[in-house]
Amino acid sequence: MTTYNLALIGFGGVNRALAELIRDEPRRFADLGFELRVVAITDLAFGSLVQGEGIDLAAVLAMPRGSSFEGLPGGSTEARNEDVIKNSPADIVVEATFTSPIDGEPAVSHVRWALESGKHVVTTNKGPVALKGQELSTIAASNGVRFEYEGAVMSGTPVIRLAHKVLGGLELRAVQGILNGTSNYVLGRMEAGLGLEQAIAEAQELGYAEADPTADIGGSDVRLKVAILANELLGAGIHPNDVETTGIQDITSQDVADALARGCRWKLIGEARRDADGTVTAVVQPVALPAGHPLAGISGATNAVSFTTDLLGAVTVSGPGAGRVETAYALISDIIAVDEFAKGAVRA
Amino acid sequence: MTTYNLALIGFGGVNRALAELIRDEPRRFADLGFELRVVAITDLAFGSLVQGEGIDLAAVLAMPRGSSFEGLPGGSTEARNEDVIKNSPADIVVEATFTSPIDGEPAVSHVRWALESGKHVVTTNKGPVALKGQELSTIAASNGVRFEYEGAVMSGTPVIRLAHKVLGGLELRAVQGILNGTSNYVLGRMEAGLGLEQAIAEAQELGYAEADPTADIGGSDVRLKVAILANELLGAGIHPNDVETTGIQDITSQDVADALARGCRWKLIGEARRDADGTVTAVVQPVALPAGHPLAGISGATNAVSFTTDLLGAVTVSGPGAGRVETAYALISDIIAVDEFAKGAVRA
Repeated sequence: MTTYNLALIGFGGVNRALAELIRDEPRRFADLGFELRVVAITDLAFGSLVQGEGIDLAAVLAMPRGSSFEGLPGGSTEARNEDVIKNSPADIVVEATFTSPIDGEPAVSHVRWALESGKHVVTTNKGPVALKGQELSTIAASNGVRFEYEGAVMSGTPVIRLAHKVLGGLELRAVQGILNGTSNYVLGRMEAGLGLEQAIAEAQELGYAEADPTADIGGSDVRLKVAILANELLGAGIHPNDVETTGIQDITSQDVADALARGCRWKLIGEARRDADGTVTAVVQPVALPAGHPLAGISGATNAVSFTTDLLGAVTVSGPGAGRVETAYALISDIIAVDEFAKGAVRA
Repeated sequence: MTTYNLALIGFGGVNRALAELIRDEPRRFADLGFELRVVAITDLAFGSLVQGEGIDLAAVLAMPRGSSFEGLPGGSTEARNEDVIKNSPADIVVEATFTSPIDGEPAVSHVRWALESGKHVVTTNKGPVALKGQELSTIAASNGVRFEYEGAVMSGTPVIRLAHKVLGGLELRAVQGILNGTSNYVLGRMEAGLGLEQAIAEAQELGYAEADPTADIGGSDVRLKVAILANELLGAGIHPNDVETTGIQDITSQDVADALARGCRWKLIGEARRDADGTVTAVVQPVALPAGHPLAGISGATNAVSFTTDLLGAVTVSGPGAGRVETAYALISDIIAVDEFAKGAVRA
C-alpha cells in the first residue's frame, strides 16, 4: 500500500478534522489504496512540528489551545512555514490557512513553495485559487505535481471535479450558483418574515455567519468562487475584480414579500456565462428566481451549482457549502486525485 | 486518433440522436480523442445494415419510416441482431431497443452476445441492467470489455458515474430519487389544482407520458431504477420484485392540498437504504416531503437523486430524466468510459 506523507499548513478546524479522520479511520483510506501519515504541522498558534516517522495525531489533537509544539521532538514555537513546506519529507502539502481576498497571501506563497519543491498541494483555500490559480497550476504542471482545490468552491460538494469527470463531451455554456450559505439562509428567513438585520443576527447565533458578515452579505465571498468557476470551467482568465458584484444588503422585506407573491424567491446568484462572441461574463447579484428554476428550491445554508450544457440543458448539484468535516472531505477527494495521478491512472 | 466502430441495435429516437451527433459533430468526439464510425445498424422496422468501412449516416437518417435497408450493400430486410452483434466488425455495441420489465429480453440476449464476443456494450436500456446487471457485468469482466449503462437511470444526468467517480472515500448510506418525470409532473399539476386524470391527460398531450401511463404512475418504472441504484451503489444484489412499490394512483387532490397546507409536497420517491444490520431495503412510494428536503424543490419533469453520505450528509444531483438527445448523451458518456478503459487510464 502506498503511504503519502502530509504536511498540514494551518491546524484549525478543517485540518484538525482531517487529522481526526486519519487518526480514527485508517480503513477509509486503506479501502482507497493508500495510507496517510502526517509528518509536519505548522500553525500560527501552535508553532511547527516535523517528525519524519509520523506525528502522533492523538497526542497533538489532545493539546489544548494556547499550548505550543515547542519541547516536542522536531517542535518549535514558531510557524516556520517556508522551511517546513520546502524541507519537510512531505509528499503532499495540505494548505488550510486563512484566505486573504486581496492578494491571497500567505497561502499563495505556501502553495508556490510546495509546488516548486516538487510537492503536491491540496487546499480548501479560495484565495490562491481565485487570485493566482492559473499561475500556480502552471507551476504544478512544470514540476510534475498536482494542485487540487475542489473545496475552494462548495467545501466537499463536488463541482470542479464533477464538471471535469462526469460531464465530459458536453459544451458548458454557463454556471450559476448559490455559493454562500449565510446569505441563502438569511434570504430564507426573510421569506419567513424576519428583517435583514434580524436574520443576520440569527445566522450569527447559529454559527453560519462570521462576526463580520460583510463578505457573506456583500457578495465578495461569492465573487471569489465565481472567479474560480469561470476560470476553471470556462477558461475565462479573469480576476475576481472583473466580477461585477452586488450583495443582498439592499434587499428589503418588501422585496422578498413581493417576489413570493408572484411565486419567486430571491437568491444571491453567482454566474459565469460564455457569450455568443466567446467572451465570458461573470457577475454576482441577487435575482428573484421563478419557482421552476433549478436553484429556486435550494433552501437554508445549502449550496448549489447549476451547469448549463448544450445536450443536457441544466444539470444541478447541491450539498453542503461549509463545515469542518465536509471541508476536510474535499481534501480527501483531492488526495484521491493526487493518488490517481501518482498511480498513472489519470493523464496530467 | 482512435476510431471506434459502433453497431447500433435499435434505430429509434435515442440511437438516431446519437447518429445525428456523429454525423454533425465530429469535432465533439475529436476533442475527446476518438472518432466514431457506425458499421452496423439493426432495427425491427428497417432491418439490418452492415458496412465495415462505415455507414453513410446522412443517407440512412434521411430514409423515411417504412423503408428498408434491403437493397443497400450489406443490407437486409430482417433485424438479424444475433448475427450482427456477434459477427459485425463493431468494437462497441450500442443497445437501445425496448425494455421488457419481465425478463429484459431481447436486450439481455443482445448484451450477452456482444460481451461474449468481446465487444463493449453501452446501453440506455433499464431492463437488462435491473434484471441481469450482475451476471452481465461478470461476463464483461471475464471478457475484458466494459458494460456501461449510465443512461438506464436518469438518461444523460450522471448518477452512477457521479457516485463512483466524484464521491470516492465517502460511505454511501442511502439513495433517494425522483426518477420518473411523468409522475413528478402530474403531482406538480395537482398542486396547481388539476385532478389526477386531468394531469395525466395533460402529461400525455405534452409527450411526457406514454399512451399507457401505468408504468409511470404505478411506480414500476421507478422500481427498475431503484433496483439498479441499490445493486450498483449499495451492492444489494436484489431483483426489482424485491422493491416494495406503491404508485401515485391513489393520491387525491385533497391529499395534495393538505400537504401543501402544512408546507409539504407529495413526490414519488424511490429509495434504497442500508440498514444498521447491513442489509439494503428498497422501496418506491409517494412521500409528502417537507420544504427543506433536498428533493422537495424538484419541479416539473426533472429527475433527481439525493445521496446520503457519512461525511457530507446529502448531496443531490438533478437534471433531465428523459429526452432523445439527453439520453444519447448518456451513450456518449458511456463511450468515454469505454475509451478511458481501452486507453488503460482506468483500472478495470
